[in-house]
Amino acid sequence: MSDLLNRLGQQSKLAAQQLCLLETAKKNDCLLQMALDLENNLSEILANNQLDLIQAQKNKLSDTMLDRLRLTAERISEMAESIRQVAALPDPIGVVEKMWRTEDQLMIGQQRVPLGVIGIIFEARPNVTTDAASLCFKSGNTVILRGGKEAFHSNQVLVQLMQQTLQKQQLNPAMIQFVTDTSHETAQELMQLNDYLDVLIPRGGAGLIQRVKNNATVPVIETGTGNNHIYVDAAASLDMALNIVVNAKVQRPSVCNAVETLVIHKEIASDFLPRLEKALLPHQVALRGDIEALTYLDQANLATETDWATEFLDYILAIKVVSSLDEAIEHINQYNTKHSETIVTDSYSSGQKFLNEIDAAVVYINASTRFTDGFKFGFGAEIGISTQKLHARGPMGLEHLTATKYIIYGNGQIRE
Amino acid sequence: MSDLLNRLGQQSKLAAQQLCLLETAKKNDCLLQMALDLENNLSEILANNQLDLIQAQKNKLSDTMLDRLRLTAERISEMAESIRQVAALPDPIGVVEKMWRTEDQLMIGQQRVPLGVIGIIFEARPNVTTDAASLCFKSGNTVILRGGKEAFHSNQVLVQLMQQTLQKQQLNPAMIQFVTDTSHETAQELMQLNDYLDVLIPRGGAGLIQRVKNNATVPVIETGTGNNHIYVDAAASLDMALNIVVNAKVQRPSVCNAVETLVIHKEIASDFLPRLEKALLPHQVALRGDIEALTYLDQANLATETDWATEFLDYILAIKVVSSLDEAIEHINQYNTKHSETIVTDSYSSGQKFLNEIDAAVVYINASTRFTDGFKFGFGAEIGISTQKLHARGPMGLEHLTATKYIIYGNGQIRE
Repeated sequence: MSDLLNRLGQQSKLAAQQLCLLETAKKNDCLLQMALDLENNLSEILANNQLDLIQAQKNKLSDTMLDRLRLTAERISEMAESIRQVAALPDPIGVVEKMWRTEDQLMIGQQRVPLGVIGIIFEARPNVTTDAASLCFKSGNTVILRGGKEAFHSNQVLVQLMQQTLQKQQLNPAMIQFVTDTSHETAQELMQLNDYLDVLIPRGGAGLIQRVKNNATVPVIETGTGNNHIYVDAAASLDMALNIVVNAKVQRPSVCNAVETLVIHKEIASDFLPRLEKALLPHQVALRGDIEALTYLDQANLATETDWATEFLDYILAIKVVSSLDEAIEHINQYNTKHSETIVTDSYSSGQKFLNEIDAAVVYINASTRFTDGFKFGFGAEIGISTQKLHARGPMGLEHLTATKYIIYGNGQIRE
Repeated sequence: MSDLLNRLGQQSKLAAQQLCLLETAKKNDCLLQMALDLENNLSEILANNQLDLIQAQKNKLSDTMLDRLRLTAERISEMAESIRQVAALPDPIGVVEKMWRTEDQLMIGQQRVPLGVIGIIFEARPNVTTDAASLCFKSGNTVILRGGKEAFHSNQVLVQLMQQTLQKQQLNPAMIQFVTDTSHETAQELMQLNDYLDVLIPRGGAGLIQRVKNNATVPVIETGTGNNHIYVDAAASLDMALNIVVNAKVQRPSVCNAVETLVIHKEIASDFLPRLEKALLPHQVALRGDIEALTYLDQANLATETDWATEFLDYILAIKVVSSLDEAIEHINQYNTKHSETIVTDSYSSGQKFLNEIDAAVVYINASTRFTDGFKFGFGAEIGISTQKLHARGPMGLEHLTATKYIIYGNGQIRE
């Protein structure tokens, strides 16, 4: 382990002892001040962002990447606004989820406490810095942020500003830490910082998630990849199905809750697929169908095995025709990444069967997959969408950044 | 990955699809039949256990180990009784923990579902086979059991009998699997069976837990080691403190919720320690005190740095004298394994401070640490006691062997 990571880990763990006891009002004051300090240092943030953008252009990064990287006055104001929203959320820490009296007359309460030290590995979007830091701070956790090298200067200035706010508030600036070395080695070290990290949350594409899965020895919460399906049942309202599929595909195709494959019952494929092709035409969605789907489509290519397993994050839709609900469920459970799955149907029994048998964080009847989102669930800002089963599954808000401890009030009980 | 582990993993994952949909009554019938089939095959179980005992004697295993390994008619009947108790527990699967309507008029429910496939690595106690298998089965999870080589024949016959019961009930016997190769390699492979395992739970001593922590790439729930403390505050009732310390040390010293270090305020050390030494005398507890403690004790040795960090699991008690509650909290948070910690005090503010500032799964005021136990918490049988923060912390019952999924009822909602 490098000196850098060891030092960051030690400092974070120490700072966590102060942060876990900090009262809610003080945390909120501090968050509001952080938001203000971002807005008051616009030009410094933009200048640092400019350094990243110049380097990115030299390195010929794609327009999409440049767009993710670019900060503007408006985007910084949105980042500040997100921090204010986190300040406005209820504090999960200290909440006693349940309390009961046992046969031995012990009063046992299950109380929410911070996890401790959270590591976040992310890629090129600088707003993750302030989003993740504010969520960790509000939930009483210190954070070690390790962003991508493309956004180095932007991330660094954002963390420095937040640390200055902490200092002004007489708090340990190590509550929010930044890994200043963006080499692969430090990412690897963060994945194995078992002495200090309570959990590591990777935020980014499938490649990052896979690297973390393969290399981490600390506890990890997997977030993100969504190879999502909509199954249009024989008993579906075709108008509703059309609305939902178009929305889930084109409203924002680059996000993890967009749909990637349409699975459709053969009885309605001849009616539905031509209407869908027409509806998607203005959005220039490339269609990749199985052989049967192609018979109903004018401009589609044959889907490959790889297409069924791919999260396109693009204007591409794979289409699979099935003979039964069972076949649809089997296809989905085989290829999905356990994120978000929808059935469109007016059959009560088909809907219930789909809810029961699909293995995913979120399973819908008659709604767009695009609702898998902390805000839409009513949780407020989210740190990510967990696609694993342990600890948290689905959109993760403040509550999912906590652990619990049992507090027990006795009056001298001993065990017989 | 060996063919053996791959095959077990594949079969378990397939069987999990059937088991997760199995109705409660069928699961309970099957558990009751398993209990009966154990009792009806007493001689076969005892004969296999005899093979293990003969080998253990050849290998000169300690009396403690032999005792852990030994099955008797009475112990088998206790194992059957434990299975019946699991059958009698409420089924956690299908429970909707909460359900709400969102601003978009979506009805979102959070429903308990099985984790999927659970791996259990354990050591020489054959009863773990039936305890773990019945808890996993009731919570809808298939299980891959990998026990120690010392108990190979005992574990194997127990699994074979349970598999026969499954077959008689027209269920896939792969719902309960047994790793027939007890080499170190298969343990290592189970720790990295990422394609099939949803979680791995090690049950055993500190060495096993550490090996799993270092080598596992699958999600792990750490269980077990308890370097637990009792802090006797200046404001404690000394009678109550004496009762609690003696109980927590000698009622069953070999278990993870026994106390290992007494931390005591200096104001009462001269009164309390001689009384404690006298009370522990009949139990032949070896005392290891710091320099100040030794001045009040007749028969104690000087404690070393190692003693503060050791889970003795034996008739040994370390004793540390402190000048303040803060010093006590600091010592405990430094050396504890985040399991169970008690303060004995009649001071309201000291009690509250201890509850707030000690980092452990279970923190007590005025009760023996020995209550950290699934039955005593009211959870029924437990699979272990988690000392990690993610997913489950403290005694783990059936509910902690589940994940959740969000089920969403819509009526055509799309995202604007």
